[in-house]
Amino acid sequence: MQTIVSSTMKSVVIEKNLPLVIIGEKINPTGRKKMAAALQSQDFEYLHDLAISQVEAGADILDINVGVPGLDDVILMKQVVKLVSEWIDVPLCLDSPNPLALEAGLSVAGGKPLVNSVSGEEARLSTVLPLVKEYGAAVIGLIMDDNGIPSTPEARLAVAEKILERAVRIGIPQEDVIIDPLVMAVGADSSAGVVTLKAIELISQKLGVNINLGASNISFGLPDRHIVNQAFLILAMGKGATCAITDPMKLAWIIRAGDLLLGKDEYAMRFIRYFRKMQVNLNKENLT
Amino acid sequence: MQTIVSSTMKSVVIEKNLPLVIIGEKINPTGRKKMAAALQSQDFEYLHDLAISQVEAGADILDINVGVPGLDDVILMKQVVKLVSEWIDVPLCLDSPNPLALEAGLSVAGGKPLVNSVSGEEARLSTVLPLVKEYGAAVIGLIMDDNGIPSTPEARLAVAEKILERAVRIGIPQEDVIIDPLVMAVGADSSAGVVTLKAIELISQKLGVNINLGASNISFGLPDRHIVNQAFLILAMGKGATCAITDPMKLAWIIRAGDLLLGKDEYAMRFIRYFRKMQVNLNKENLT
Repeated sequence: MQTIVSSTMKSVVIEKNLPLVIIGEKINPTGRKKMAAALQSQDFEYLHDLAISQVEAGADILDINVGVPGLDDVILMKQVVKLVSEWIDVPLCLDSPNPLALEAGLSVAGGKPLVNSVSGEEARLSTVLPLVKEYGAAVIGLIMDDNGIPSTPEARLAVAEKILERAVRIGIPQEDVIIDPLVMAVGADSSAGVVTLKAIELISQKLGVNINLGASNISFGLPDRHIVNQAFLILAMGKGATCAITDPMKLAWIIRAGDLLLGKDEYAMRFIRYFRKMQVNLNKENLT
Repeated sequence: MQTIVSSTMKSVVIEKNLPLVIIGEKINPTGRKKMAAALQSQDFEYLHDLAISQVEAGADILDINVGVPGLDDVILMKQVVKLVSEWIDVPLCLDSPNPLALEAGLSVAGGKPLVNSVSGEEARLSTVLPLVKEYGAAVIGLIMDDNGIPSTPEARLAVAEKILERAVRIGIPQEDVIIDPLVMAVGADSSAGVVTLKAIELISQKLGVNINLGASNISFGLPDRHIVNQAFLILAMGKGATCAITDPMKLAWIIRAGDLLLGKDEYAMRFIRYFRKMQVNLNKENLT
């Protein structure tokens, strides 16, 4: 199943037989003081650099989250989506808990953006899905409902089915719903990794939909989080994840290796090209 | 299915529900000039340091290969196995294409060592399996036969079945045969990763045996081999590999992360302990 998202300039295809699509996560003030301050002071130079550097490092899509307590996220979303669309030509992923902010982003984003996110919660289903339908967007569906995040892979599959069914019922094509199985911290619950990996496998096999991973929660509270995030992304790719909201600077390299090993990179051209590009960048840094 | 190998002091259990068993690969002169020179000049101090540091870094078993063209590998194997058994208490994996060298190692190794390796080739089956039986050892069976390395997962399964059948026929318990699916370079053949991963999954499901991975061939000829080896090991763990002949200094850390994510490390205790130990070692290095 293919999910196609696009900017006015560029299309990105998310599909099981293609390399993992990287959604750059860094334009998001949650837990990032510098970004929050930049949004507060309307210092868009900082966002500009983050947009460029993520695409440079391998982001296929950029996530845009502007939620800072006390700031008007509707106005900010519109501003930032417009600016980012001028700076770079990749599709955007509009990320907000506020449907009005999502709508503001949708109203100015060209092409067919991704909406992050709906869930199985009634309040989300009834507000977000109509927006997705109206603007012809694609959407990420988080596997949780009004009872929280289900603890078994089978129960997660059921929530995924519910989200899909509701989307299809109002006229959103099934292929435009990407399921995100949600990842809990493995440091708090040793079964967190296994449950999510099994959910990915099950949903991928039963529903055939694209699967997104928000990779960094898994390592919350652990030392050396980077290595846990790396390993989890690779395991999830092995089970059928097709896109990930993640940090391309830190993870695009091993993702390229995973794509290669999963048979999605003929003659290792993509891996070698990435290596050369990063090497050139490293040399540049050393020279300056 | 449990494969138990042991030294006179220590047992190691290889099993699907337990963390991946790491077989330290570094006592092997193939492609390592310094090691070849050390064996030539009987400079065992160098081997001593490698044995200690591998166990320190997380090796559960040590591979012992002493093959240097022009040197007597039978005498050397006996010497080195005796010495290493004095230095460290982990089980050994005796690694030689020469059955006489394997026998020399078996005659002096205490406990129940691992023999590396038999294959589906008639000459190997008829010489190595009787040794394994005689000494009550366990053995790694490489998936190749007189026609070479089969190109499909199904054909690899057939060779694995043949090796198992021949072992059982002469009285080696099935659980003492560990299958190694053999890994080709993905830079030369883009399907190399997928075929081996599918073979691991198939063999693990159909035969239930333990599966060993010699991880570093996969990246032959590529830049940044380390990241490819890391990703491949993690993918293989996700498919059912239960042990790996690898470099614990480079890979034990991400393997610990993989074990954690695959539900084999309750409360992340093992991962955190390893992190603390390595941190202490790094601090020591910085002080000296």
